[in-house]
Amino acid sequence: MEKQPQRVTRHPERASTARGDLDAVLDASVIGTLTTVADGRPLVVPMLYARDGDRVLLHGSTGAGALREAAAGAPVALCVAVLDGIVVAHTTFESSVNYRSAVVSGTCERLSGQEAKRALDVISDRVIPGRVAEVRATNAKERAATVVLSLPVLEGRWTVKARDAWSDVPDEPSGAWVGIVPVTTTYGEPRTAPFSPAQEVPASVRMLVEAHR
Amino acid sequence: MEKQPQRVTRHPERASTARGDLDAVLDASVIGTLTTVADGRPLVVPMLYARDGDRVLLHGSTGAGALREAAAGAPVALCVAVLDGIVVAHTTFESSVNYRSAVVSGTCERLSGQEAKRALDVISDRVIPGRVAEVRATNAKERAATVVLSLPVLEGRWTVKARDAWSDVPDEPSGAWVGIVPVTTTYGEPRTAPFSPAQEVPASVRMLVEAHR
Repeated sequence: MEKQPQRVTRHPERASTARGDLDAVLDASVIGTLTTVADGRPLVVPMLYARDGDRVLLHGSTGAGALREAAAGAPVALCVAVLDGIVVAHTTFESSVNYRSAVVSGTCERLSGQEAKRALDVISDRVIPGRVAEVRATNAKERAATVVLSLPVLEGRWTVKARDAWSDVPDEPSGAWVGIVPVTTTYGEPRTAPFSPAQEVPASVRMLVEAHR
Repeated sequence: MEKQPQRVTRHPERASTARGDLDAVLDASVIGTLTTVADGRPLVVPMLYARDGDRVLLHGSTGAGALREAAAGAPVALCVAVLDGIVVAHTTFESSVNYRSAVVSGTCERLSGQEAKRALDVISDRVIPGRVAEVRATNAKERAATVVLSLPVLEGRWTVKARDAWSDVPDEPSGAWVGIVPVTTTYGEPRTAPFSPAQEVPASVRMLVEAHR
């Protein structure tokens, strides 16, 4: 998943207003940080998420603090950041990182009934595509123990930024090396639990690893 | 950096009160999310950070919104999350991820003068150890364009959590596969910029890559 740096500009960091760029960053990871405000202070927790069209789905235990605040209508921000490279310049000041990041702000709606059931399946299939069809459906007891939230992606309530470039051409005499160290996140060989009922790695997991090698 | 799952417990997710565990998670990454509160809403931005003993150092452009709020004394929370594995269970409900996460809350102090200069070097050497000694020192103009903040790590103002385990042993008849897909972040082969004054990859970058292969 190494990417070709595209440009050499004075300010290679850029914000985008293209919704497609937002979706691409949200779809590039499965873990983000959800922040709410409680007593005027930020309350933040990392969590799995899944974009589902024009909304972001979140879930967690009914006991989780930040999620409870979010379910009660507190303002939230979900932040996703993907590190793509260490940008090595001729000075430390010009050194940087290549990255992609997205923030979706708003308030969440708590889902219930069939909506919650479907949302949980969407999240599960986002983390391991195809897994929902391989195992039994969630049951009522499991759903009762889970808070499922939907954060709408609304115009003006999201930002997406990326940096994907070398550092600037040195504007001073320098003999220093300039370049990039690519950073990638990869999925490794599946490991079967000693107590696993099945020994053969299922198709969903095989394809997941293949997609993130 | 694949880690051996250690336990099979009912609730393998665990919080720790050991300061060493916090330091280990903070030292395991270079990118986190900084959240402040503005007008009652969370304001979040991903950023590089460096733990320096009992404080976390942050820096950025004087123009950056969240950083400006933080510099002005708004309450902040820095969150770091590292994804270690996809935990595949016999049900979607029991499926999870292995991860390490840390949150440090508090208010920041803006550094200046020699303190800021040293802090910038600490951040640079945290991202690329040894790089500071290879290039010229930061100058006054560069430091004037940079906000440098120190977030103290204070008792009771931080949390650290980790999950590192298989899913639970199935408590119902199931033929499903149970296991883990390890997730690792690695640094790849350095790429030299076409305009780089030097062609040979410096020792700092070679060692960085070696440490994150």
